[in-house]
Amino acid sequence: MKIITLLTDFGSFYPAQMKGVILAKVKDVTFVDIAHDIPSQDIRSGAFALLSTAMYFPQGTIHLAVVDPGVGTKRAGLVIESGGQLFVGPDNGLLMPAARSLGMPKAYRIDIKFDAISSHTFHGRDIFAPAAAMLALGKKPESFGPRIRPVDLGFGTAKKTDLGLEATIIYIDKFGNLVLNMRDLPPGTVQLKGIRLRQVRTYAEVKRIEPLITLGSHGFAEIAVNQGSAAEAFGLKAGDHIVLEESDCLE
Amino acid sequence: MKIITLLTDFGSFYPAQMKGVILAKVKDVTFVDIAHDIPSQDIRSGAFALLSTAMYFPQGTIHLAVVDPGVGTKRAGLVIESGGQLFVGPDNGLLMPAARSLGMPKAYRIDIKFDAISSHTFHGRDIFAPAAAMLALGKKPESFGPRIRPVDLGFGTAKKTDLGLEATIIYIDKFGNLVLNMRDLPPGTVQLKGIRLRQVRTYAEVKRIEPLITLGSHGFAEIAVNQGSAAEAFGLKAGDHIVLEESDCLE
Amino acid sequence: MKIITLLTDFGSFYPAQMKGVILAKVKDVTFVDIAHDIPSQDIRSGAFALLSTAMYFPQGTIHLAVVDPGVGTKRAGLVIESGGQLFVGPDNGLLMPAARSLGMPKAYRIDIKFDAISSHTFHGRDIFAPAAAMLALGKKPESFGPRIRPVDLGFGTAKKTDLGLEATIIYIDKFGNLVLNMRDLPPGTVQLKGIRLRQVRTYAEVKRIEPLITLGSHGFAEIAVNQGSAAEAFGLKAGDHIVLEESDCLE
Repeated sequence: MKIITLLTDFGSFYPAQMKGVILAKVKDVTFVDIAHDIPSQDIRSGAFALLSTAMYFPQGTIHLAVVDPGVGTKRAGLVIESGGQLFVGPDNGLLMPAARSLGMPKAYRIDIKFDAISSHTFHGRDIFAPAAAMLALGKKPESFGPRIRPVDLGFGTAKKTDLGLEATIIYIDKFGNLVLNMRDLPPGTVQLKGIRLRQVRTYAEVKRIEPLITLGSHGFAEIAVNQGSAAEAFGLKAGDHIVLEESDCLE
Repeated sequence: MKIITLLTDFGSFYPAQMKGVILAKVKDVTFVDIAHDIPSQDIRSGAFALLSTAMYFPQGTIHLAVVDPGVGTKRAGLVIESGGQLFVGPDNGLLMPAARSLGMPKAYRIDIKFDAISSHTFHGRDIFAPAAAMLALGKKPESFGPRIRPVDLGFGTAKKTDLGLEATIIYIDKFGNLVLNMRDLPPGTVQLKGIRLRQVRTYAEVKRIEPLITLGSHGFAEIAVNQGSAAEAFGLKAGDHIVLEESDCLE
Repeated sequence: MKIITLLTDFGSFYPAQMKGVILAKVKDVTFVDIAHDIPSQDIRSGAFALLSTAMYFPQGTIHLAVVDPGVGTKRAGLVIESGGQLFVGPDNGLLMPAARSLGMPKAYRIDIKFDAISSHTFHGRDIFAPAAAMLALGKKPESFGPRIRPVDLGFGTAKKTDLGLEATIIYIDKFGNLVLNMRDLPPGTVQLKGIRLRQVRTYAEVKRIEPLITLGSHGFAEIAVNQGSAAEAFGLKAGDHIVLEESDCLE
């Protein structure tokens, strides 16, 4: 049983085409959909979801991830091996945060040609899915093409400025929680847009509708409104920059 | 092949983390996603979806369900056996309507500790998914902890009052159909907000856009607008209380 | 390992009921969800998604598709064999474009009765899922009932009129791309609502937010706004008729 995960911004029915392509070549696949609702062409959100998830999978898992605004251009396709897991997708930074988190990534450009007439708009189905199927059948990463240094993508880090701690929202989940590019909580109490954020270990420590900041289960700081939506309450979206000011309220 | 279903209010990518945790321990799992779009922290909607679905699965199925506003508090974790099926999740009522529908539930508190450093915000991944994996590997429910009387949750029942039949909306589906806490249709013709609801066996009996009440495939009464959305037409949402008045129109 | 795909307009939890019914009879099924977010009762959108996807699956695949506004009426149920693949669902046109694309469809009416007490509103679970399970277990299509000529459904074709090229939007995807009932690109440059559409092979050829027309990966013409939503930009929805006028701008 090979495990193949899928992460795309395709919504519905296109991921099933990719699975069909794979099942036409490989029997006994366990598919796991990581997400298909990544905001359209938002590489950073996709990279965050993959980074947060890949580490929980066993060795030998193949992660097929396609958020691909550059499809049809000269951007390369990649196979990456890291920590015993494999990644397939476009060379645009999507795969690298997850690959780096598992070990020392070895990246190979996909230079081989595929039988199917390749569309110009859907490499996920015509190149990356067949490549994932080949990996599942035992083809070695290094046999896809030369080793290259892939495009990387960082989430940046929050910076201390005169205004406070400047951070970026890298992901907004279904609860409206704001995931920040911060691996630690701020040293003291902070406020966002004048509203104090309680530092907590768990949402249940605060009253209903009270805003909080916590270290999320993914290891990044996260602003939430207990049983509400922080995205709505603060009017913020993925990619927005925010300033966490020192709070003038006493704890 | 063990069957493990998942039901959460997590939206995307967190359910995949749970599957990764399970696949790291158990080979040959068939996952079935029941729903991951339960309204955030709406235990009642989750309980309804699980109740409606569990009965169709074969003996030995493990249902892993997490809608968990109390995560991080002292609320217990549960393993329940009922009618040859198993349930894992928080002790907040989510699992019980489904477990009761299958037989006489035996519930055990999860007292064992797990290897992984448990997050304070994601017991679905750090406690319940590993527990489901253990069940899949043959661990007995009674070996997780002492037998307890779990928190239960009812959907209430519609009541006859001077105003009419008072009912609660327990779920709204993708079609905008309103599922009520009623196991039978009203004895006579009723109206909602002054609009007569035709009692039918099947949507196709009414004209396009005509409101109706029928016994849904889940066994609960359901108000629908044929080829339209009753939720939109009547301006109602899950949790709302409604009054079904005796209709003053002739059938 | 039998492959069973599912395509419905049910949203969440009802598809899991269908899977439970199948797993109660068949071990070792690989389920692939094609789509469960087909616009409610939109047979045409469902037929397009199935047509676009079925061809990628291997011989022996069973496609279980239910978009079924006529449930509870006298509309028949179908098993179709075409090109070595099998289709199960209502006789309302949903299955035929996909079945025709794979070969010469042989369609059989489902006349056999099923053990389960059949609901009047959910044949997907009570008739079509058990039929798919029987097919997976080896039952022959011709043993379900007599061969019939099924309801068919075409997408129509774009027509040249005095106004220009009149086409219909048959599907809108997550990106807001408009899929048209045209298998070829227009001969010259065209505009929609006064806005010129660049003819391209790939989205990346145009500037951000520039409208384009291209042959989609499914083989139909598609109007898109690079890194934006054409559905939003032009205020259009599935089923809308549009006119592509000859452009008065120079390329």
